[in-house]
Amino acid sequence: MPNGAQILIDGLVGAGVRACFANPGTSEMHFVAALDDAAGLRPVLCLFEGVATGAADGYGRLAGRPACTLLHLGPGLAGGLANLHNARRAATPLVNVVGDHALRHKRLDAPLESDIEALAGTVSGWTRRTYHAGELAGDVADAVAAATGPPGAIATLVVPADVSWSAADGPPAAVRPARAARRGLVSVDAVTGAAAALRTGGSAAVLLGGEAVRGAGLAAAARIAAATGARLLCETFPARMERGAGRPAVRRLAYPPAGARRQLASVRHLVLAGAAAPVAFFAYPGQDGDLVPEGCEVHALATGAEDVTAALEGLAEVLGPGSAVREEAARPALPTGELTAESAAAVIGALLPEDAVVVDEANTSGLWLPGATAGAPPHDWLTLTGGAMGQGLPLAVGAAVARPDRPVLTLVGDGASMYTVQALWTQAREGLDVTTVVFANRSYAILNLELGAVGAAPARERARRLLDLSAPALDFVALARGMGVPAERAETAEEFAALLKRGLAEPGPFLIDCVVPPLV
Amino acid sequence: MPNGAQILIDGLVGAGVRACFANPGTSEMHFVAALDDAAGLRPVLCLFEGVATGAADGYGRLAGRPACTLLHLGPGLAGGLANLHNARRAATPLVNVVGDHALRHKRLDAPLESDIEALAGTVSGWTRRTYHAGELAGDVADAVAAATGPPGAIATLVVPADVSWSAADGPPAAVRPARAARRGLVSVDAVTGAAAALRTGGSAAVLLGGEAVRGAGLAAAARIAAATGARLLCETFPARMERGAGRPAVRRLAYPPAGARRQLASVRHLVLAGAAAPVAFFAYPGQDGDLVPEGCEVHALATGAEDVTAALEGLAEVLGPGSAVREEAARPALPTGELTAESAAAVIGALLPEDAVVVDEANTSGLWLPGATAGAPPHDWLTLTGGAMGQGLPLAVGAAVARPDRPVLTLVGDGASMYTVQALWTQAREGLDVTTVVFANRSYAILNLELGAVGAAPARERARRLLDLSAPALDFVALARGMGVPAERAETAEEFAALLKRGLAEPGPFLIDCVVPPLV
Repeated sequence: MPNGAQILIDGLVGAGVRACFANPGTSEMHFVAALDDAAGLRPVLCLFEGVATGAADGYGRLAGRPACTLLHLGPGLAGGLANLHNARRAATPLVNVVGDHALRHKRLDAPLESDIEALAGTVSGWTRRTYHAGELAGDVADAVAAATGPPGAIATLVVPADVSWSAADGPPAAVRPARAARRGLVSVDAVTGAAAALRTGGSAAVLLGGEAVRGAGLAAAARIAAATGARLLCETFPARMERGAGRPAVRRLAYPPAGARRQLASVRHLVLAGAAAPVAFFAYPGQDGDLVPEGCEVHALATGAEDVTAALEGLAEVLGPGSAVREEAARPALPTGELTAESAAAVIGALLPEDAVVVDEANTSGLWLPGATAGAPPHDWLTLTGGAMGQGLPLAVGAAVARPDRPVLTLVGDGASMYTVQALWTQAREGLDVTTVVFANRSYAILNLELGAVGAAPARERARRLLDLSAPALDFVALARGMGVPAERAETAEEFAALLKRGLAEPGPFLIDCVVPPLV
Repeated sequence: MPNGAQILIDGLVGAGVRACFANPGTSEMHFVAALDDAAGLRPVLCLFEGVATGAADGYGRLAGRPACTLLHLGPGLAGGLANLHNARRAATPLVNVVGDHALRHKRLDAPLESDIEALAGTVSGWTRRTYHAGELAGDVADAVAAATGPPGAIATLVVPADVSWSAADGPPAAVRPARAARRGLVSVDAVTGAAAALRTGGSAAVLLGGEAVRGAGLAAAARIAAATGARLLCETFPARMERGAGRPAVRRLAYPPAGARRQLASVRHLVLAGAAAPVAFFAYPGQDGDLVPEGCEVHALATGAEDVTAALEGLAEVLGPGSAVREEAARPALPTGELTAESAAAVIGALLPEDAVVVDEANTSGLWLPGATAGAPPHDWLTLTGGAMGQGLPLAVGAAVARPDRPVLTLVGDGASMYTVQALWTQAREGLDVTTVVFANRSYAILNLELGAVGAAPARERARRLLDLSAPALDFVALARGMGVPAERAETAEEFAALLKRGLAEPGPFLIDCVVPPLV
């Protein structure tokens, strides 16, 4: 008779879950033991919960189906919440398995006791606690179905220790069939409305988000643009965007509201396809957070919860054929001399391999990246969807586990990298083919910009120290090597190019401490 | 006219808050700017929120009054939650300042939007959102009062960006006086009941917790033991325990339930002073989590929320004088040869300086520490109160900021250290006099024990990999140096003794990678 942990793992594997990013504790020991007999589920140890959840996010974005995490009670879930916030914003399919005290232990208020459901509710589309091993088969099936969607969501299953160690007495509860994914449902009104708007000849744009920046949805968007002359824009922080030479030309909305306003200024009809109406990332004194320009009509073709791809395909069908604008193959020349965020971007544009997965948490140092890589061979671009720092290194772990056949390139600011730097150890442990570039500008440079943008007084000594990472300087070569990842430092454009070539050519992880001046 | 951020900082300083452990973002920029004119509040930058909250916990445990954190919206608070869980269990006075979007930005559901209050509620005794700059002076006074207690608690104040950047139009709201600390209230029935129980001559013990293991409470407990022969026990994980040569002999309850049961087996009367009735940390199949032996009567003298010190003093008064059992000054000899958790403990016992603050997250490698240090010169011992790993390194940051006059010694397992390893950078940045010993047994050794204790199948290859930290081995010397902390490796008892002497003698931080075999 299998115990609960075995039923749980069988259910996960049976529902197609293939990877478990784990930071377990005592209440998860039966789950850990049961992994020995579960060849279908790859356990990946993470040294901090935020690495586990970020990795599961990266896996889900690439695989299109959920990985699971394994977390230790409320505090373990808490450690993973920031990257779960990002995963929620990315609509990533993801299943959290959170162990808890045995049910009869709950009332004792032992030290690790806390309100798991309250924490889970802030990021999860679905949360349930299993009270009996006999219910686990059904609960895990529901969890995977809820996570898979579409749209993808976070499903959190709380599994008390005694549910894990008990046998199901009696036959398992009938497993409810996974919720049928309701694909193909499209609002005809929305399609005809969008078509009419795009045909007005006024300046029109389609704002793409979610799955609309990938595959068939993106292809349909390109046909729509070709038929009508509408511009293709994309939400500022897409979960995974397919781009590069030969792919439709799509521009991301700028992060600074002034830049986004410029991009949208002439738009009179804005069709939303998987994206919400554009808003500023932050509020600024005296500015409206709503970025839709006055006089612009907004047309909701399909939300991220609907079948955006089918809606775009229907709209393209209605609008008829045209010749899509595609990115031309074009790479920057390899620069020489000073290493800056700009010259580093040129190096990356010059060397980015075909089919690369780019994980972008470069923040201010990433300003030149979109331009420098637009014409590089086709690749995927993953961004910081929820604004919670520390996503990049873990996301790369999951992306590399999901797609061992593709090179993963992580571009991350030094400040951002330190939130979840432990991810490098997992990259070494698992031999993941990830090349990491840390842009070491030795500053929370984005906050130096924001300090002015919000109208705060210019920082003097005490305030400046809260934005400064230069004293002491972080030595990312030492940090990476300390976790088993080979690493070198680049201080000129030539050195960076040589190291990037090496990192991309060699299997396994490699890190480049890319020393650049801050933007401001 | 001051803006909200200035009012907030003035209120914190006015209420006695002297340190701010910060990981700020855009919505906190006015707070950051206002620090330039707030000489009374020391800003300490932390590279991850869990470092900030753990440091504030350490500060509060040593100073007995709150430090504040500065955190960035829901995701920033989320990153700090695990160590806030520990702080809640320690009853540490602590104020969280959590920035949020401007109020008119809330409805836009911008990427960082999340349910801050739901997160805060899981760890806070007091949570409030300020809606107007004019309310801030009153709100911050309430927050500090709620945090200060007694008992100490976590108070979380959510400050929208526009509240920070706005001026208070009109005079500030009348500041409500801080809640009077209701010290000195003691239940006479509880005192006489405990006295009667302790006089029965049956085997009696006093279980101390919270403030009862410090200062006047501890001294009174010693007199009670002297007058009655009762044993003095202490909760397994005290927030801060005063111990060492000349101090009352108090034994902590063992972490493994079997050990705690042995300690309690002969107890017929158990008097609770600031501690809850003892329960097992985790549940185990077939075992009761309640550790009070059958036939033992429990007498609640005072809970942690009451004036435990006054209650113990009253009880001591009732019971009359006696000769207290105090720890004799005794240090182990400096061992030679193999470096193990046991010989390392002897080194620490031999060298621990007077008035040291010991931060203990050594887990299995700490087994011999209490015995080896009981007779060392008087010192404070801080433990992992809530079971959320990653407390040690940050706690030391806060302890050293609170008490720059005392040497801080952090004893931490390699697994535990990696959750919040970024704390080392703050130790270097601030030049804190912290000596860190990482017990590198290259294993989640405690989970190897727990795997057997919960009756799970012995781990084979796949399961074992989730508990193993040996491949690749973490190089803590490289990690520490990469963050600016001098570090060396010890592989023999002599090397460890030499390095510990050096670390304790030199000002500023120092780390020892102390390579020991795992306990099992």
